[in-house]
Amino acid sequence: MESGQAKILDCTIRDGGLVNNWDFSIDFVRDLYRSLNEAGVDYMEIGYKNSPKLLKGQDAGPWRFLDESFLRDVIPQKGNTKLSALVDIGRVDENDILPRSESMLDLIRVACYIKDVDKALELVAKFHNLGYETSLNIMALSHVMEHDLIDAFEEINKSPVDIVYIVDSYGSLNHRDIKYLVSKFQRMLPDKTLGIHAHNNLQLAFSNTLVAYERGVQFLDASVFGMGRAAGNCNTELLVSHLKNPKYDVRPILDVIEKRMIPLREQVEWGYIIPYMLTGVFNEHPRIAMALRASEDKDKYVEFYDKLTSPETAMASKGGD
Amino acid sequence: MESGQAKILDCTIRDGGLVNNWDFSIDFVRDLYRSLNEAGVDYMEIGYKNSPKLLKGQDAGPWRFLDESFLRDVIPQKGNTKLSALVDIGRVDENDILPRSESMLDLIRVACYIKDVDKALELVAKFHNLGYETSLNIMALSHVMEHDLIDAFEEINKSPVDIVYIVDSYGSLNHRDIKYLVSKFQRMLPDKTLGIHAHNNLQLAFSNTLVAYERGVQFLDASVFGMGRAAGNCNTELLVSHLKNPKYDVRPILDVIEKRMIPLREQVEWGYIIPYMLTGVFNEHPRIAMALRASEDKDKYVEFYDKLTSPETAMASKGGD
Repeated sequence: MESGQAKILDCTIRDGGLVNNWDFSIDFVRDLYRSLNEAGVDYMEIGYKNSPKLLKGQDAGPWRFLDESFLRDVIPQKGNTKLSALVDIGRVDENDILPRSESMLDLIRVACYIKDVDKALELVAKFHNLGYETSLNIMALSHVMEHDLIDAFEEINKSPVDIVYIVDSYGSLNHRDIKYLVSKFQRMLPDKTLGIHAHNNLQLAFSNTLVAYERGVQFLDASVFGMGRAAGNCNTELLVSHLKNPKYDVRPILDVIEKRMIPLREQVEWGYIIPYMLTGVFNEHPRIAMALRASEDKDKYVEFYDKLTSPETAMASKGGD
Repeated sequence: MESGQAKILDCTIRDGGLVNNWDFSIDFVRDLYRSLNEAGVDYMEIGYKNSPKLLKGQDAGPWRFLDESFLRDVIPQKGNTKLSALVDIGRVDENDILPRSESMLDLIRVACYIKDVDKALELVAKFHNLGYETSLNIMALSHVMEHDLIDAFEEINKSPVDIVYIVDSYGSLNHRDIKYLVSKFQRMLPDKTLGIHAHNNLQLAFSNTLVAYERGVQFLDASVFGMGRAAGNCNTELLVSHLKNPKYDVRPILDVIEKRMIPLREQVEWGYIIPYMLTGVFNEHPRIAMALRASEDKDKYVEFYDKLTSPETAMASKGGD
């Protein structure tokens, strides 16, 4: 499939915020919105809509706890690029959510682990009733057992959720895994639109996104210059360059990389970095690699590898998740 | 195919030498050889076997003009990892080449553009008669017309060459292109072993190499930490981690990345860098992007994009190759 059905969702601010504690200036976010809009990108995920009352992190930038009146100041004039926000189970105050007709947001995405799909779908139903487009993002699919996924599919089919995401949280999947998951999701969720959110631990985020797209997955997550937690995401500039749709134009994205992302990358890091590669290889959460990179031992790869592969440490790490 | 037939050929010194003018110390190359050997990597391409009499660049390191007695000093004790060298048409002095029984080298690879396949095969025949394993690396396949390739296949089938490489010189190919080329090469060259040499302009080098491998391509080029001209190559550490063969062990590669490649990457650059991404998108030789990166305008991506896409400049650049 090389159709015009694909939608690019840029999550630079939301997933990239995990790298810099959402410390993006208003000008940065305005520039990014303008660039994405000119580039024809379909959605911009402008942050989390979690509640500061339910979550630590008051030192974080405003994109972690989006506020409607603040958003209206940031983007006084919306273009064709829609806005989305992510919420986490147990961290969102439903009373914070306006009806869509009064909101800057078009799409609310609910992220959860497999055990919380029921809670996530309850939230989805509320946002759906408020008029929003909705998605369910089941994280860490590479750690989910088959029968749990099948149970979840039954619940999802009863829900009004519009989009269901295949999320490669640990960046451990390759094209064969993606083909397998896409075909399973399509078979089990015939009436849902599918999405993919890839991480770049093994330099496979763009490739996996293309493979999913060619098999009919419509919502493609990406971030500018790949900015996202740890190894980062599929690069928006690669998707915009590749997809055959005259509305997409990479030039405005190059502008924001040149002016905004290159200076930012000098201050904070993301991307293909060996400890993240290794958590991808071992299908683990990157948190231990993130801790390593924040320490003086950040480039002691062999020591880190030995820790990852020693039976004691490996078991402790699995047990903790 | 997830078979044990694959051979990894590490070309860090040869292709990486294009980045640092082959300025690797003897200790560096010894460390790398030891690591590759411990990691189970099948071949190490230790440089070019071009002649300093036939090529400018006397300021280059010794890996550009390999000398047998020098090689014997560098690697007094060979392990299981075989050694290879690349030669270019018109730049190699055949009298420099010892019979294999007296040489440190096992494999000689001949690189050429499509118009020189006849000359390349003449060289191949000589090296074959001297006892070497041989390969033919047709560069810039993405610029080759179908009928020229078919003519070349006829000549290749008459030659004793062992391995024929699919070379994505401009890093512009994706998995669909690779499937197409592999299937064509397999059909037209049924008796030849195939190889792949990918570049990482679009972050697809590893993915393309996997796709080729799964379809039966046996010789997989890679370089440690991706070091190679411009966007670099498929990463050796990714291949060694991925391939299902107990002889491969990523740990020694991590050691050489930690000790050698991280400090080197501070001094010279390669990898996913926007101007190289753009020459990949436009299927062009990276030389104009390399010139940009060597200038003060190295991060002026929009200006570079405009130059690449203006009809005059684009034509001039095509004409020059």
